[in-house]
Amino acid sequence: MVETRPPSGFRDFLNQDALIRSDLMERISRVYRSFGFQPLETPALENLDVLLGSGGGEENEKLVFKVMKRGEKLQSAIGSNPSEDQLADFGLRFDLTVPLSRCAAEYRGQIHLPWKVFHIGPVWRAERAQKGRFREFIQCDVDIVGAKTIGAELEVIQAVVAAIHSLGAGGFELRLNDRRLLQGLGNQLGLSESEFQTFAVLLDKKDKLEPNELIAEMKSALGSKYSQVIESVIKEEISLEDFGQYAAEATADLKILMETLRSQNLPLQSIVFDPSLVRGLGYYTGAVFELRHSSAGYSFGGGGRYDKLIGRFSKEALPACGFSIGFERLFLMIREQQQAQSAFRSGVFIPVFSEVLRSDVLKVAALLRAEGITADVYPDAAKLAKQFKYASDQNYLWALILGEDELKSGNFKLKDLSKGIEESVKKSDLVNRLK
Amino acid sequence: MVETRPPSGFRDFLNQDALIRSDLMERISRVYRSFGFQPLETPALENLDVLLGSGGGEENEKLVFKVMKRGEKLQSAIGSNPSEDQLADFGLRFDLTVPLSRCAAEYRGQIHLPWKVFHIGPVWRAERAQKGRFREFIQCDVDIVGAKTIGAELEVIQAVVAAIHSLGAGGFELRLNDRRLLQGLGNQLGLSESEFQTFAVLLDKKDKLEPNELIAEMKSALGSKYSQVIESVIKEEISLEDFGQYAAEATADLKILMETLRSQNLPLQSIVFDPSLVRGLGYYTGAVFELRHSSAGYSFGGGGRYDKLIGRFSKEALPACGFSIGFERLFLMIREQQQAQSAFRSGVFIPVFSEVLRSDVLKVAALLRAEGITADVYPDAAKLAKQFKYASDQNYLWALILGEDELKSGNFKLKDLSKGIEESVKKSDLVNRLK
Repeated sequence: MVETRPPSGFRDFLNQDALIRSDLMERISRVYRSFGFQPLETPALENLDVLLGSGGGEENEKLVFKVMKRGEKLQSAIGSNPSEDQLADFGLRFDLTVPLSRCAAEYRGQIHLPWKVFHIGPVWRAERAQKGRFREFIQCDVDIVGAKTIGAELEVIQAVVAAIHSLGAGGFELRLNDRRLLQGLGNQLGLSESEFQTFAVLLDKKDKLEPNELIAEMKSALGSKYSQVIESVIKEEISLEDFGQYAAEATADLKILMETLRSQNLPLQSIVFDPSLVRGLGYYTGAVFELRHSSAGYSFGGGGRYDKLIGRFSKEALPACGFSIGFERLFLMIREQQQAQSAFRSGVFIPVFSEVLRSDVLKVAALLRAEGITADVYPDAAKLAKQFKYASDQNYLWALILGEDELKSGNFKLKDLSKGIEESVKKSDLVNRLK
Repeated sequence: MVETRPPSGFRDFLNQDALIRSDLMERISRVYRSFGFQPLETPALENLDVLLGSGGGEENEKLVFKVMKRGEKLQSAIGSNPSEDQLADFGLRFDLTVPLSRCAAEYRGQIHLPWKVFHIGPVWRAERAQKGRFREFIQCDVDIVGAKTIGAELEVIQAVVAAIHSLGAGGFELRLNDRRLLQGLGNQLGLSESEFQTFAVLLDKKDKLEPNELIAEMKSALGSKYSQVIESVIKEEISLEDFGQYAAEATADLKILMETLRSQNLPLQSIVFDPSLVRGLGYYTGAVFELRHSSAGYSFGGGGRYDKLIGRFSKEALPACGFSIGFERLFLMIREQQQAQSAFRSGVFIPVFSEVLRSDVLKVAALLRAEGITADVYPDAAKLAKQFKYASDQNYLWALILGEDELKSGNFKLKDLSKGIEESVKKSDLVNRLK
């Protein structure tokens, strides 16, 4: 027998879970649109050279699921003692920012700047599957291409905060930093480029290590260039003002950004400067930000400014800034909240008393659906007990009773399945009663 | 410079096109739900052995984009003069029916039968890219698992017809046949299993060949077993009654199915028995159906009964029936209709007269969005002329003028960008005016 579980790190979503997920995506999309962002849809597969070398170095190489060449090209590659890269031509996208940057370059002539765009879809990462870490997951990105100033940061942050709020999720904290501050510190300490990379990679592990462990690792990695300042960064004990000496423009930007955000009374628990925030190594060049849940203690999304990524694909370097919602954690949180409630499914169940009545029953169902009411007709010839078992399994509150007499007279019966009580409803009143 | 076009056969969708696509998917999903179908979400990647051997034989083998193994497993495979299948472990799904069947087996304990389920998402086929034929495309499937009788065929057909109608697309014709009729004819003519396969594969090419070419190919392929009946099948000149002598039960089912469909006054141009309809070789076992556009002359979707596919994955064979909308052709048709109209984009554009006003402007925008009104604030520091150029590029009809005076007094101005006329609106009346 064929294995029926999905591959490790991949998931199926059924029934209530799938319903919650598609509702969440629709709602996020609606909020993004209300800010004037336009949707973008890009393929799952990209040419491998688009995915590799987009700033993450060997890390990306390992992340990418590679798609094998086909037909003769594959056969001739196999025959010649191939390297890994000679066997594959496409890869599955590992984020939505790289495809967006490719599109900004490719469709430059069709895009009006600033391009306010959102992008919701799955991404794939060939990581070892772990609890809570998946190899296919949804991202919900919002980006602005072609805007240099913090107006863009404000927009994407507000859009993400509004989207998450619209889902009924609360208790979030926004943490901000700027890559230029970290780079300024690195310059001040005289770190070489590779030493700075080491510093940033270590700092990015802050959530996984105890402060003292991290400080010890920093000391051993940076040797004589280690400074007490690094400890105050790790412990978040350095103020923006003190940090700012290393990068005056970035400090001024970050101050205005945080002040303006605070003036908006956003549904956030707090807005915090976090000198230790790195947000991965990749492509960020300016402000970086992250949404954390105060109690959960992990990130529900992050983003920042990436002014150089599009230049990889185009002679014209375009400034850009984006924010991505980590959909999967949000889904798990909201699913937990919703499972606490056990609401009836909306709409009405319609049993079929006899197959000769099905045609007339279907006509009544069509009337209801045309009015936006879910009408679930039992789709098989079956005994009534079995049909009502289905209605209760599906958690319907109402059943519409359409026997031969009811169909002839137009005097229908509506049954409350929780109480077992029937009431009479005229065909002409049915829609109003159910609404 | 890296190539920025998507790989051949893959597409990006921007702006209006992406908007139309997401709207279409949401509307189809809403209609499916109004019939009581529940959503299903499955991964893009499946274990290769799930995808291969699902009834299509070598055809499927060629269709599947295969994902290379990773790390040590790949290295050891490469070192040992590998076959194609030793290099890959996963593949991209080529339809949504195989994953659904896998799920029906895997989650049998969590599913209440009959399982009314819909599944919207991309599928991938490693075919040569041609005009109008893509390697990534969206399918919108609706299926019922666990129902034996034509009540299930009725539901899926009605759901698909209602979904397409809700998009404003018309002029469709429903064509029906039953695999058991074709099989009955094959038995009658004494065709061996492989001869029957040849007959079905040829018949399935009917759209691509002239009737006389097809008849000649049939004659040469079937030799002495060729009969005049085949010609009347190809020319659709045989009635259901005459065809029915080969499979009485299938004929009776098909008659009731067509009669019931006709009684529903569905928004279809016609409902036609088509003795030559095959719908591919794959997994169908009973009724097959197809939606054609009367003038376009090609299929916008198809489906049928597949009572044996789930048995591949489970000891318990479950009857099943489904219908899939060919989303891409529908999209192209509706896009053409919508391009004829050139409507203004809904919502309001808000320029920022000076960066010191941005914070107050954002608060007004938030008020509008909370009322469901799109408010698109210009996200960068820029001259007003450039900001209004954006508004006109984006096709907004209204701009909300929020200068320093307006923000102080609460007497805002609303500008009709098509006529260049301004009107005064109090802050408190703004939402009503824009709605």
